[in-house]
Amino acid sequence: MDNLTVIKIGGNVIDDSAALQRFLTAFAKLAGPKLLIHGGGKIATQIAAKLGVETTMVDGRRITDQAMLNVVTMVYGGLVNKQIVAKLQALDVNAIGLTGADASTVLSEKRPVKDINYGFVGDIKEVDSGQIQFFLRQELTPVFAPITYDEVGNLLNTNADTMASAIAVDMSHHNSVTLIYCFEKKGVLADPNDDSSVILELTPTLYAEYKAAGTINKGMIPKLDNAFQALQQGVSKVIICHADEVALAVEQGAGTTLKQ
Amino acid sequence: MDNLTVIKIGGNVIDDSAALQRFLTAFAKLAGPKLLIHGGGKIATQIAAKLGVETTMVDGRRITDQAMLNVVTMVYGGLVNKQIVAKLQALDVNAIGLTGADASTVLSEKRPVKDINYGFVGDIKEVDSGQIQFFLRQELTPVFAPITYDEVGNLLNTNADTMASAIAVDMSHHNSVTLIYCFEKKGVLADPNDDSSVILELTPTLYAEYKAAGTINKGMIPKLDNAFQALQQGVSKVIICHADEVALAVEQGAGTTLKQ
Repeated sequence: MDNLTVIKIGGNVIDDSAALQRFLTAFAKLAGPKLLIHGGGKIATQIAAKLGVETTMVDGRRITDQAMLNVVTMVYGGLVNKQIVAKLQALDVNAIGLTGADASTVLSEKRPVKDINYGFVGDIKEVDSGQIQFFLRQELTPVFAPITYDEVGNLLNTNADTMASAIAVDMSHHNSVTLIYCFEKKGVLADPNDDSSVILELTPTLYAEYKAAGTINKGMIPKLDNAFQALQQGVSKVIICHADEVALAVEQGAGTTLKQ
Repeated sequence: MDNLTVIKIGGNVIDDSAALQRFLTAFAKLAGPKLLIHGGGKIATQIAAKLGVETTMVDGRRITDQAMLNVVTMVYGGLVNKQIVAKLQALDVNAIGLTGADASTVLSEKRPVKDINYGFVGDIKEVDSGQIQFFLRQELTPVFAPITYDEVGNLLNTNADTMASAIAVDMSHHNSVTLIYCFEKKGVLADPNDDSSVILELTPTLYAEYKAAGTINKGMIPKLDNAFQALQQGVSKVIICHADEVALAVEQGAGTTLKQ
């Protein structure tokens, strides 16, 4: 098995059923082994509100008490994950929905409490890429929800970007891995107000310059940090592009390609 | 692979966290390949109520409109399933949580509307026992939520007893299968008011007699019909017992054993 495509889609695609269907249709057509990691979207916050569970975000991260953990387990691990699996099956992709707990694919540990108590949030310790490889060899397409587990029976809410890069890095022991982050823009923008100003290639030096200039904003920084780290740790290629351009990105190139 | 144990646990175990932990501890210790199917429990009804989704039951079956389907997908496929998987992982069982959509293990079709429109309820068409066998050979323990899918992208709410018997029957092409239904009594009772009146062996003739006498009640009839059908279709043994006696049932015998 040579090339593996690992794709992460975020909440903006999950929340828009037409966009999700377009993405899944393109994803279904991608050649070769592939793997999907999805984020949560606004549904978790909406359902939490209806259930009387308050949402608290710190620096874009969700504080996860037991009640919120139950909500994200339901929404990410149940509703979103299984709807994607059923839709992919209808597109002739033999998808299998997983959290990190399933087949012990992604083990994490509860984030230690320092300044902030994030609650049931997991930092990834170990990916069982051998197990994931085994699914791929069986022509299954893993679809991961951003939930992992610890060794003592807890599920843990986990950042989907981090989960995507951790899986991509570990899979790079077996494969040449292309990691694609799909988001709502056509790529990383040189001018945040100009959607056509996509940076075609981004190196660590350029990234540092854009950060210093304040061009690359808050939300993009953890995503890009993750992405550069993945490159350093063995992933062959990282692309950041719009969900609608995923086929183009794989086949011809689109969005921003990160280089070392 | 010779003997496979297929166990179904119902809502009464799911709803009682101490009972669930006792059951999972016993399940973890069972020798040989095994497979779990769980029901839903009252949590789905409670969460539906909080979300403003009305629960309508006809003859003990849940009418499943789109909103209720979303609730059961969240609760059965997400919350309950993943909590069981995480707990089993902590007990050193390499569990993998599945709906029928995952790896296309259990395909169904939306129940046709006759007198009653059950909504998104699935009647099982096909079990991919080869795929399930493949998980078992990898020393994975499948944990099924009672949700299946059709070929056009819909998830379908499915009776857990029926799902257990359909899986057990199909697995009997590969294995000698023992199917165990765990419930809140110690077995099928000759006197519903006397918990010690467990019928040790039940044949179709005896079953017909108990039904005619009204001893075997409404809720038990579909369960026993399923169970006898499973026996006729190749399952080696069917046991109906209390969740606390599952180890005893496997090792020495407990509860009611169905015979042809």
